[in-house]
Amino acid sequence: MGFIKLWRPKALYLNLSRQTRGKQKWGITLLNAFPKKIRIFDTTLRDGEQTPGVSLTPDNKLRIAKSLDKLRVDVIEAGFPAVSEGEMEAVKLIAKEGLKAEICSFVRGTKSDIDVALKCDTQSVHLVIPTSDLHLQYKLKKTREEILKLVEESVQYAKDHGLVVELSAEDATRSEFNFVKEFFAKGISLGADRICPCDTVGVLTPEKSYKFFSDMRKTFKDIIISAHCHDDFGMGVANSIAALRAGAHQVHATINGLGERAGNAALEEIVAALKLIYGVKLPIKTELLYRTSTLVARLTGVPVQPNKAIVGENAFTHESGIHTHAILSHPLTYEPISPEFVGVTRRLVAGKHAGSHGIRASLEKIGLHPTDEQLKEISMRVKTLGDKGKKITDADLLAVAEAVMGLPQTSPIKLEELTVVTGDRVTSTASVRLKLNNKVVSEAATGLGPVDAAINAVRKAILVVEPINLEQYHVKAITGGTDAMVEVIVRLRRGDRTATAMGVREDIVMASVEAVLSGMNVLMADYHKRGHK
Amino acid sequence: MGFIKLWRPKALYLNLSRQTRGKQKWGITLLNAFPKKIRIFDTTLRDGEQTPGVSLTPDNKLRIAKSLDKLRVDVIEAGFPAVSEGEMEAVKLIAKEGLKAEICSFVRGTKSDIDVALKCDTQSVHLVIPTSDLHLQYKLKKTREEILKLVEESVQYAKDHGLVVELSAEDATRSEFNFVKEFFAKGISLGADRICPCDTVGVLTPEKSYKFFSDMRKTFKDIIISAHCHDDFGMGVANSIAALRAGAHQVHATINGLGERAGNAALEEIVAALKLIYGVKLPIKTELLYRTSTLVARLTGVPVQPNKAIVGENAFTHESGIHTHAILSHPLTYEPISPEFVGVTRRLVAGKHAGSHGIRASLEKIGLHPTDEQLKEISMRVKTLGDKGKKITDADLLAVAEAVMGLPQTSPIKLEELTVVTGDRVTSTASVRLKLNNKVVSEAATGLGPVDAAINAVRKAILVVEPINLEQYHVKAITGGTDAMVEVIVRLRRGDRTATAMGVREDIVMASVEAVLSGMNVLMADYHKRGHK
Repeated sequence: MGFIKLWRPKALYLNLSRQTRGKQKWGITLLNAFPKKIRIFDTTLRDGEQTPGVSLTPDNKLRIAKSLDKLRVDVIEAGFPAVSEGEMEAVKLIAKEGLKAEICSFVRGTKSDIDVALKCDTQSVHLVIPTSDLHLQYKLKKTREEILKLVEESVQYAKDHGLVVELSAEDATRSEFNFVKEFFAKGISLGADRICPCDTVGVLTPEKSYKFFSDMRKTFKDIIISAHCHDDFGMGVANSIAALRAGAHQVHATINGLGERAGNAALEEIVAALKLIYGVKLPIKTELLYRTSTLVARLTGVPVQPNKAIVGENAFTHESGIHTHAILSHPLTYEPISPEFVGVTRRLVAGKHAGSHGIRASLEKIGLHPTDEQLKEISMRVKTLGDKGKKITDADLLAVAEAVMGLPQTSPIKLEELTVVTGDRVTSTASVRLKLNNKVVSEAATGLGPVDAAINAVRKAILVVEPINLEQYHVKAITGGTDAMVEVIVRLRRGDRTATAMGVREDIVMASVEAVLSGMNVLMADYHKRGHK
Repeated sequence: MGFIKLWRPKALYLNLSRQTRGKQKWGITLLNAFPKKIRIFDTTLRDGEQTPGVSLTPDNKLRIAKSLDKLRVDVIEAGFPAVSEGEMEAVKLIAKEGLKAEICSFVRGTKSDIDVALKCDTQSVHLVIPTSDLHLQYKLKKTREEILKLVEESVQYAKDHGLVVELSAEDATRSEFNFVKEFFAKGISLGADRICPCDTVGVLTPEKSYKFFSDMRKTFKDIIISAHCHDDFGMGVANSIAALRAGAHQVHATINGLGERAGNAALEEIVAALKLIYGVKLPIKTELLYRTSTLVARLTGVPVQPNKAIVGENAFTHESGIHTHAILSHPLTYEPISPEFVGVTRRLVAGKHAGSHGIRASLEKIGLHPTDEQLKEISMRVKTLGDKGKKITDADLLAVAEAVMGLPQTSPIKLEELTVVTGDRVTSTASVRLKLNNKVVSEAATGLGPVDAAINAVRKAILVVEPINLEQYHVKAITGGTDAMVEVIVRLRRGDRTATAMGVREDIVMASVEAVLSGMNVLMADYHKRGHK
């Protein structure tokens, strides 16, 4: 019946995109006036860096710029060079790197800002001048006439110095539209190359954005029009896409949706929607999206929430039984985007909502093959743990399975004693005594702090028997007091196998040791090797 | 000239909402067909709890249900009682609490699921049966005829037992529309009270959502229609609002946008946009939004990213000089939403992008009044620190200001010695020797772990001189290895004054002590008291 063919990922996406381009499933034609070439103007390093509390060193800015270039964005707004010496250095560094993307400096409507940009030698400037009465009166204390004068002087000056000029009207969406038009007409008459009416405080809606940019297109026919949307009401991405649908040529976006307040429209979301839902061709290398997101999160220190679209750690993770069962049968049932598209892999996790299919899949990975009856009991016990509010790791799943299947509880490693000394005038030192398959092993180690010392001692003791690596060590943010619960999650690797485990205590040292030992126990319970059926 | 009047917050919002309701600023009428009463169906405790890794105890589910009720949502989907014993207990507990909201159980199209819901005594069931060929073939392995039979049996059964029935077509937006219509017609004929075509994998766009729900409204005139949107492409909120604009009566949403994969549409964003942008009346007590968000984040363990709309910690925080300057002159310039609306307060922070106006405001809070010349120098030095990638706390700002203003560097407290012993068979114990205004103080204390012991010792030593409280202790998530940098941020209070400070080390004990001592130094540098001008 050719059904499976119809539901190949590619077919699905094409199918979706055809719907939006021509006749729709529900009988109407949608008016998509996408331009031939859509341009991505990345502002992670400018508006994104303005995120409160974020400061990047010039070196780190360069690293991010390089990864944006690999992603193939069209423009990299490298920074606001007038803001500080270091920022100027950073922009200069990026400009002379010889990247494919156009490198752009943010400037206000003053000669001095443009002079600093010239020193940085960027190809273009993003020249921003406000147009709303609110900004004119309370921020600049200027009249509309004075604003037009600013436009005249600064565009003229920038063009005279050979710069590509993208002229932005700040707070355009709360400005009188006639004045916005006058503002841009003036800029264009003096040679501005691109224009951008900004939704500075994110008050657009998709329908308003569509209308607004349709009007812009009708008024300004021969120039690149750009959209700059903020996410204050959670609609930054939809508003950006609406602008493109109305014929805007370019969108401003940031990785992870960084930016002032609730941030800018997220680049990864715009790109995924354009490609997969609207079937638009874009040169963006989407398989680098996850990697880029991780780099930006790490260097800026701004975490991505697990339930963030496209790049959140849960975007391709499934727990609920209904979902994992279906995913195992056909991923598209609950995955509108294939993990490979973004450059990640799918994760199935056990938990209160898990069903037996997902749990069987997880157990088979560690070499356990429960009967149907046993599987039912294991699922039930996992749910019971979940009911108590527990997050289920590989270590928990193994313990439950062993109990149900009547296998001897795997616990070849037992902590007999741990002592750590630390302070400001003493090298952190730990001694540990472990029982390893009934043999007592003692080791001591130093480290950078008490946790490092303790884990070093444990690893040294184990290394005698098993080459196990600590691949990931993660401590959940601790909030409350110094006696708050600390949750440590680790992933350990031995050869091609990994195991996750967790430790929860008020004491970060003991929580870390608990997690590492519990993960080591999973890896040493090698049912594959033992040939268990 | 009556200008200020025009820009009162209220006037702005009304102004915006009028635009979308009647004649728009740009000359067209937008078709908003909002129903008279918009209903909020909260699914934080069901779809939200299905977030991988989240398991709530019955007690915690009840706490969240109560806070949702205070928020005044119309329906609380309390859980999926058939999933586990504990979940059933939780739903039962919530149902008998006597809350104002309708309490609802999630059920599949089986009598056994409905029986469990009946045991829980909820008023309604959210009865979910798939309609897409993909789900029929790969998940349920059933034909369309069999699906209609399921609808018939389960709706009939639920109605016979006196339940309010909200019938959902799972994956409706990837289903053949004629079949979706047939599905709902069947359900309605048997007494279903509300219908909900689900955008299960978040593939709608605002324009498709508008069209889809317009068609639904035309087909089903006398029944409550609900939208259930996921956020896989970052458009869940816009899609939900588009559905309401097309006449849908109800939206499903979750606090913090929790839910499977990228989550569901975020309740707080939908509510804020409806109220402030569309001028729609809703009984939701928005001033409780932030508090509810924090509670849900804490109990589920899923953090909210700083740049999340409405409830993110940066949504009302400003660093950039251009922004803080304007905000101090008139908040609406860069704040589309007033912090009070959500129940938070605005924060201004210093940093690389800060301007002198924001820095002066921060210094005046600690009693320092630099001259214009000094202020310029302080701003420059803050920027230099920022260029090095440093996050600026009150302690940093004070140190810079003192240096520039020629005041003796405040450092009445100096750490002379700290030793901590910890382990699994020893009570964590710390001894500390501090120099306090040139007097040496020694103290020892125990604690739950080495950090707690160290800070207890420090506090005990200080207490002799100053009653300072550790109000907030926050450790940023640690990722990497056990030797990764640990960033500790504290907020201390002495009377009505607070100070933030930070410690960064590879060692969590030393980072914590550093942060606390540095914050204590700020509080003891009381320029107000000293009457400095």
